[in-house]
Order: sequence, then C-alpha cells, then structure tokens
Amino acid sequence: MHFMQSLQQAWTRNDSLVCVGLDPEPSKFPAHLGDAPDAVFDFCRAIVDATADLVCAFKPQIAHFAALRAENALERLIAHIHVKHPGVPVILDAKRGDIGSTAQHYVTEAFERFAADAVTLNPYMGRDSIQPFLDRADKGVILLCRTSNPGGADFQALDCGGQPLYLRVAETIARDWNTHGNCALVTGATWPEEIRQVRALVGNMPLLVPGIGAQGGDVEAVMDAGCTAEGSGLMINSSRGIIYAGHGEDFAEHARAAAIELRNTINRCRSRA
Amino acid sequence: MHFMQSLQQAWTRNDSLVCVGLDPEPSKFPAHLGDAPDAVFDFCRAIVDATADLVCAFKPQIAHFAALRAENALERLIAHIHVKHPGVPVILDAKRGDIGSTAQHYVTEAFERFAADAVTLNPYMGRDSIQPFLDRADKGVILLCRTSNPGGADFQALDCGGQPLYLRVAETIARDWNTHGNCALVTGATWPEEIRQVRALVGNMPLLVPGIGAQGGDVEAVMDAGCTAEGSGLMINSSRGIIYAGHGEDFAEHARAAAIELRNTINRCRSRA
Repeated sequence: MHFMQSLQQAWTRNDSLVCVGLDPEPSKFPAHLGDAPDAVFDFCRAIVDATADLVCAFKPQIAHFAALRAENALERLIAHIHVKHPGVPVILDAKRGDIGSTAQHYVTEAFERFAADAVTLNPYMGRDSIQPFLDRADKGVILLCRTSNPGGADFQALDCGGQPLYLRVAETIARDWNTHGNCALVTGATWPEEIRQVRALVGNMPLLVPGIGAQGGDVEAVMDAGCTAEGSGLMINSSRGIIYAGHGEDFAEHARAAAIELRNTINRCRSRA
Repeated sequence: MHFMQSLQQAWTRNDSLVCVGLDPEPSKFPAHLGDAPDAVFDFCRAIVDATADLVCAFKPQIAHFAALRAENALERLIAHIHVKHPGVPVILDAKRGDIGSTAQHYVTEAFERFAADAVTLNPYMGRDSIQPFLDRADKGVILLCRTSNPGGADFQALDCGGQPLYLRVAETIARDWNTHGNCALVTGATWPEEIRQVRALVGNMPLLVPGIGAQGGDVEAVMDAGCTAEGSGLMINSSRGIIYAGHGEDFAEHARAAAIELRNTINRCRSRA
C-alpha cells in the first residue's frame, strides 16, 4: 500500500496521531534485557507489539542502530512490523541527502534494504538530490523544514527575500516537488507558530512533529497550530517519553500506558477543535 | 594524528591535492571480480593500494556500502587504509545531520565504528546538530556549503540579506563553529566563482571539491578559484573518473594512471600560480 494511504488509514483505524520513535540505547534498557545478543531487537519489538494499535506510524532512527552495528536488527524489526502489524507505516528517520547518483543508493538503503514506507531527508542539496525519492510515488518523502532543536534557527530562520528559509523550503516542496503527492515535512513541536505558518502554506500535507516530551514541545500548542481542518494531518512523534517510560520487566506496558496518555492528550485537543 | 595534520602532511608528502572517492558499484566492477563474496572490499582495496601514494585523502561514500549491506566491508577497508597506508586520512562521506542527542550516535558511527578521520555533514539543522562532531578536535568536520549538483542552487543560492545562503553558511562556520580548527567545507567544482567567494571568506580552511570529471567540473578553474596563497587548501575529489578508469584485470593500474594524470593536471596549475 502507498505510504500516504497507510498513514490515512492508520490515523483513522487507531484514532491516533501518535508516532512512536524507536531510538534504542542499550544503556537505557531494562536490566533484564542486559547483554542479550539481540537486546536491541527484543527491546524494540516489545515496544512495537505493545503500541501498534495506538499509533499512526513507527519511526526508527537509524543512527541508533548504526552506532551499534545493528542494521540487521533494524531490518528484522521493520519486517516484523510489516508482518505482525500490517498497515502501520514505518518511517526510516535517516535525514539523508546527496547528489542524484548517490541518492539512488540511499533509495535502495531505505526502501529495498530496510523496506521502510517513508524516509526523512534533508533538502539542503536541492531537488535533484531528492528526485529519486520523489519518483517513488508509493513511498513517503519527509523533508526537514523547521527542526525542533535549538540550532534549527541558525539557517532555517534566515530571511530569504521577506520569507524565512523554512517557508521557502515548505513552499518549494508543496508547489514543485510534490507532483506525486508523497511529500511531508518535519516541523518541530518547539516552534508552534512556525508550524502554523507552514500549515497555512502547504494545505493538508502531513507534518511530522518531533520535539514533544524530552525536547519540551507542547501538545496543545502543536495541535492548535498544525491540525488540518479535519483535525488530522500530523504525526506527533514521541521517542524517549514512550519507549523509556518504564525501566523494569514491564517496560512495554509502561510504554503502552505512555502512548495511550499521549494519544488521549492529543485527542482531547482534537475534540475541542 | 589529528585529521588536519594528516591532511597537511599528505598534501606535502604525496605532492597531491587529489582525493579518491570510493563509490563501489558491483555492476561496474571488472568481470573477474564477479560475484566474489568480498568483491566490494577486494575492489576498493585494490584501488586504495594502487593510489595511496598519490592522494591527500580517501573518501568512501557510505550509501554505496549501505545499499549493499556492506558496512562490514567498509569497516575493514578503512582499517586496511590505516594499517597499510598510515597517514592517509579517510573522509567518511555520509552527509549526516540530526539533533544533538542523535548526532552523538552519528559521531559513534563515523569515528568509532568506522574509524574515519573526518566526516561530511549537512549544516541545515544548525550548530547544536554539529556540536558533538566539532567537539572532536582530532576529527575533521566537513560541512556542505555549495554543492556540485544542479539543484545545489535551489536553496543554497537564495539571497539571505544580501548574501547567498552558502556564504552565510561558510561565514558562520568559519567565524563561530571552527573553534577547534577542525572544520572544512564542501564546494562543488561545477561552481568555481562560488568557490572563489567562499575562499575569500574562510582564509586557509580546507575545501573538499567534488564534481571533477563525471559531473563536469574543470580543474583549472577550480585551482584558480580555490587554492590558498600557498597553492594548497583543496581536496579535489574524483570518484568514477579514477576507480572505473579500467574495466579489466588491470583495473587498479588504470586507476593509478588516472590518479597520476589528475594529480599532474592539478600540479601544473599549482606551478603556474
């Protein structure tokens, strides 16, 4: 199924705008997983199985796997999601971006090797660096726009002829790059007013919103700024706040409880809107 | 040894500004390597061994390995360079960039797992996304500035208060980010006038210049625009033009000949300057 369809259906089926970020760090794992050879896979699988009916997407962050030489665990994890939780899209958070001939290899990495449904990308190198991804109409192309981190403003907020760079990026993608309707944007929860500006420019294009929780973003402000008229259009990511909610043998239950709480908080805002 | 020292010494020792890009594509390998289980490693090692005395750096491009599930070959290749050709720095061409807590995992990927001496990074997310790399004074931090691809102008050339974005990036890095003297910039060979502007802003900061050869960049124009007063300061990358110069069993000799030719072309420009 196309990413955009899966996402729409998961939004509805699970009544959820929650995206769970899978950022495994063995030092934060519950003690009983310890040094098990497959602890990374086991940890992530437990989180996935405990939350798959509560989310609109999963978002494994690839650096966390690469730093551990755990690409194989990531492959198996995504395969597990596809088999056990079909219809829940997987966003590979990789923020790649390179010239066209190399971009094709990143396409292979994301969509063939890892079988992700969507990938995050960095737009700095311009359209031809993204084109091989855009050409995959079945896959989601999620481009950095206004990121959640403190340095996000260093370049993204520079004034480019009366418009900050991130709005130029948003406008260019919405107007010129989205010919297959498979684009989405990353807009950090820490900048709700910027989310509002982006939403005004891009219509119903989905926005991936990291920065809730550990990074300090506020759900209510994000919902107010970023929802579409239908009360949807967002993938609100939480990683650490959900996956490390518990530290004991029942860590997956704690993750489930945290995901329910976030979904409910979000949905209260939706019903108010 | 610190990356900047290795680079300086390799420039001098090998009298070369040539950086050989290692972009393995099995479909382009000589037939006799065929389906050998370790063809990626064998191919790259042969290129490395045939050119190590002719280069200032090697630059493996990670997507080419990731698409093939060949991270292990990349680890062994870089280890081979360190052991057999000590003093030749290795630049991991990865163009990473993410929030600080994730950037730390990319630091681990580049410098611990792969033991690279330097890494290419994307500056779009701003300083805190790069800080964990900047903090590694022993490692090179090579930031995208003005890239060689056609779409490089889409955002990089936008006017930001009287200055194109790529010059704002160059200026910010040179002025604020380079506190450990470990920064360098990527400036594509296809835009020599832009290289000249960047050079004027950043003093002797090394520039990594891709885009010679297959992408159409001109060596003489690059040298004229980008050399420091000492006739140095550049890592002029060639990937396909060198590594696929030959297609038979003697492919490595052809690669050596192509590297010699590029070095000589560059050095003729240096002696003229």
